[in-house]
Amino acid sequence: MTATEWSTEPSVLDARRLDRSGVEPAGRPAAVAFPRSAEQVREVLRDAYAGRTPVVPRGAGTALTGASTAGAGAIVLDLSRMNRIRELRPDDGVAVVEPGVITADLDRAAAAHGLRYAPDPASLEISTIGGNIATNAGGLRCAKYGVTRDSVLGLDVVLADGRLVSTGRATLKGVAGYDLTSLFVGSEGTLGVVVGATLRLRPLPEPTVTFAASYGDLFDAAAASVALATARIQPVLAELLDEATLDAIDAADGTHLRKAGSALLLVQIDGGPQEAARAAEVLGRAASDLRSTSDRSETAVLLAARRGALPAIERLGRPLIEDIAVPRSRLAEAVREIAEIARRHDVPICTLAHAGDGNLHPIIVAGRSAGPIPAAASLAADDIFELALRLGGTVTGEHGVGLLKRAWLARELGPVSHDLQRQLKALFDPRGILNPGKAL
Amino acid sequence: MTATEWSTEPSVLDARRLDRSGVEPAGRPAAVAFPRSAEQVREVLRDAYAGRTPVVPRGAGTALTGASTAGAGAIVLDLSRMNRIRELRPDDGVAVVEPGVITADLDRAAAAHGLRYAPDPASLEISTIGGNIATNAGGLRCAKYGVTRDSVLGLDVVLADGRLVSTGRATLKGVAGYDLTSLFVGSEGTLGVVVGATLRLRPLPEPTVTFAASYGDLFDAAAASVALATARIQPVLAELLDEATLDAIDAADGTHLRKAGSALLLVQIDGGPQEAARAAEVLGRAASDLRSTSDRSETAVLLAARRGALPAIERLGRPLIEDIAVPRSRLAEAVREIAEIARRHDVPICTLAHAGDGNLHPIIVAGRSAGPIPAAASLAADDIFELALRLGGTVTGEHGVGLLKRAWLARELGPVSHDLQRQLKALFDPRGILNPGKAL
Repeated sequence: MTATEWSTEPSVLDARRLDRSGVEPAGRPAAVAFPRSAEQVREVLRDAYAGRTPVVPRGAGTALTGASTAGAGAIVLDLSRMNRIRELRPDDGVAVVEPGVITADLDRAAAAHGLRYAPDPASLEISTIGGNIATNAGGLRCAKYGVTRDSVLGLDVVLADGRLVSTGRATLKGVAGYDLTSLFVGSEGTLGVVVGATLRLRPLPEPTVTFAASYGDLFDAAAASVALATARIQPVLAELLDEATLDAIDAADGTHLRKAGSALLLVQIDGGPQEAARAAEVLGRAASDLRSTSDRSETAVLLAARRGALPAIERLGRPLIEDIAVPRSRLAEAVREIAEIARRHDVPICTLAHAGDGNLHPIIVAGRSAGPIPAAASLAADDIFELALRLGGTVTGEHGVGLLKRAWLARELGPVSHDLQRQLKALFDPRGILNPGKAL
Repeated sequence: MTATEWSTEPSVLDARRLDRSGVEPAGRPAAVAFPRSAEQVREVLRDAYAGRTPVVPRGAGTALTGASTAGAGAIVLDLSRMNRIRELRPDDGVAVVEPGVITADLDRAAAAHGLRYAPDPASLEISTIGGNIATNAGGLRCAKYGVTRDSVLGLDVVLADGRLVSTGRATLKGVAGYDLTSLFVGSEGTLGVVVGATLRLRPLPEPTVTFAASYGDLFDAAAASVALATARIQPVLAELLDEATLDAIDAADGTHLRKAGSALLLVQIDGGPQEAARAAEVLGRAASDLRSTSDRSETAVLLAARRGALPAIERLGRPLIEDIAVPRSRLAEAVREIAEIARRHDVPICTLAHAGDGNLHPIIVAGRSAGPIPAAASLAADDIFELALRLGGTVTGEHGVGLLKRAWLARELGPVSHDLQRQLKALFDPRGILNPGKAL
């Protein structure tokens, strides 16, 4: 076995102490390890366990919550060099990968066999499977095809003390023992380090039909997205853009989206012509404008608004991307109240939503400087979390808890659940070395 | 609060000491409690915890593994009277139910709104949601629509000491905290007692096309089921019946299935006409006979073979229903080897398989008497488990571990995972009162 590569170069450390949350950890990590095998990860953890050294596992550092930040004294465990697709077995509908594989690379490899890796977080071209697993990443098409957890069959995990455990299975179905796999998925590197994953690949679907429906009123747009399900339609994606977002896109791209209506709903269907026809009927009922296409390049044009939203909002100032979810029927109410929160605190908030599953991304525009977050933005964020819980929802739909939402997590979980979760953490990581202070 | 109803009548106890596994527990349970609310369950558990009394939660008693058997000294916690659908919210795609709701009843209630509860264990007309959750029940259409876990959003669970914890969420997406929901799903009543469940409802799909394809060779049938996925087809169900099963059905029902081929593959498609056309092409390549229909009553005729299989096999003798899963590509090999095991031990074995996810049910015909299982049948079962692990599979695809597969579970999990699972059990149930001796 070759030795694990290490670095203590300041530039290497600085490139691995932050994620995309804007959270600034105190100090600089002690070292970065670049393991190339499970055995090397085990060695790093055995030593860290013996020395009680904090270890921060890291994929691509695209977390939006502070989950991948590393401060003074920590070892960053950079898993990006464990990036091999070890097996791709089309007949089994299974891939076995290392954690550093880029999500889109796996999807492309599967596509060569008529299959795909279904989860599609917006970061899929830069984020890693390991990071997706750590946060149980969602995405656009999870309304129909599920989140990361729904595609993870089994895991190889190095525990805090360096032991290696295999969870789950290589089969599509199986119920032997407690579901440790789901426990590790979404645990943000606090229970163990994923060094291998057995993933489910699904058949590539039928060609899609994409709709862009504009509505004069936000409630009509939200109602249309809800009406799809009871009309027996399962959209692949249903993305809602509010007025502030449309204004931002129009300003950035010279489009006239806002003119067509104050809310835009983008819907994609892959269930065949009958389902597409029903979708056209449902979406058209209250729309001020409805366009649809099956053509590939026209589809890209219709989806351009969603893709361009974040860059357009970034032109207004520094974006704080929130991530609440509410019961689907409360979506319009949530967007309306978020606009009210923006007025109350006098901060711009643009809201995008994965309407199909009630997951909203209110994007707070927090000034132009890179300094501390303005108080008004923080207060607005707190009001948004408060709103999510009041509507029967959650403070995080797909980004995770990290450092930013720990106080709110305790409130959402309640004391019994929070207590159980802390006991689980203590069971898996009795010395508290794995990504300490995160997720709980 | 009214008091919990209790019974110590011998006939009431006897009706609740067994499940459908054939396992005979030692003695008769001490009492049966019939709670009607979470509060009553809490009270039962607080007392049991204080007195260190074993508690066996029970739904409909349809377990095939001994998981619901209760012997001397145990309290049976019969949850069948907690059978209300508390909320059904079509706009949210969510139902909130008590554990004693019959699975098919929920599905019918959802259908009135264009929705359905997707998991369909064969027992769905008699088994309960709580029992489905306890075993993470599968079924026919889980190849496309997932197993029970994939439809459970959140749970209310009474812990061993009587505390009530709510897990998960009422939204379709959410990643706040560790996934306690998945930990309770499939835990066979050993970590807590489910007293409420928030379930996902999905849109009713397009009308289906059903195919019955006969093949002269088992490998051709299995290969056809595998070829579907890489031809971009996601069947709702893909059921394989082997030669011994076809013979049993022909003998019982006067049909001539075996004449058309030595293996029968039943496939259902709900993804529209293009997908159905591709399926016809793929299934037809090597078939000796291929029929298809979209008509409802003709569909029932085609599926009658699958439905009639177990009753037909029961005419041959007492059925021991095994439940292994293997990687999809090893399906034919597994069926072939099971036939060899039958010859070796001179016991009839009929094999049905959910081919879409590699889940096989070899049904060992264990004589005609109700006495102890013959040695040859037990040896054949052990050889089947051995085979599952050798092919990279699992000893239980959807029925669970219960009492019957504990030794094999330890072997499948390996020492590190088994150790972690025992620690989890001790964390949740420090006095070991919840369904003791089961599942682990």
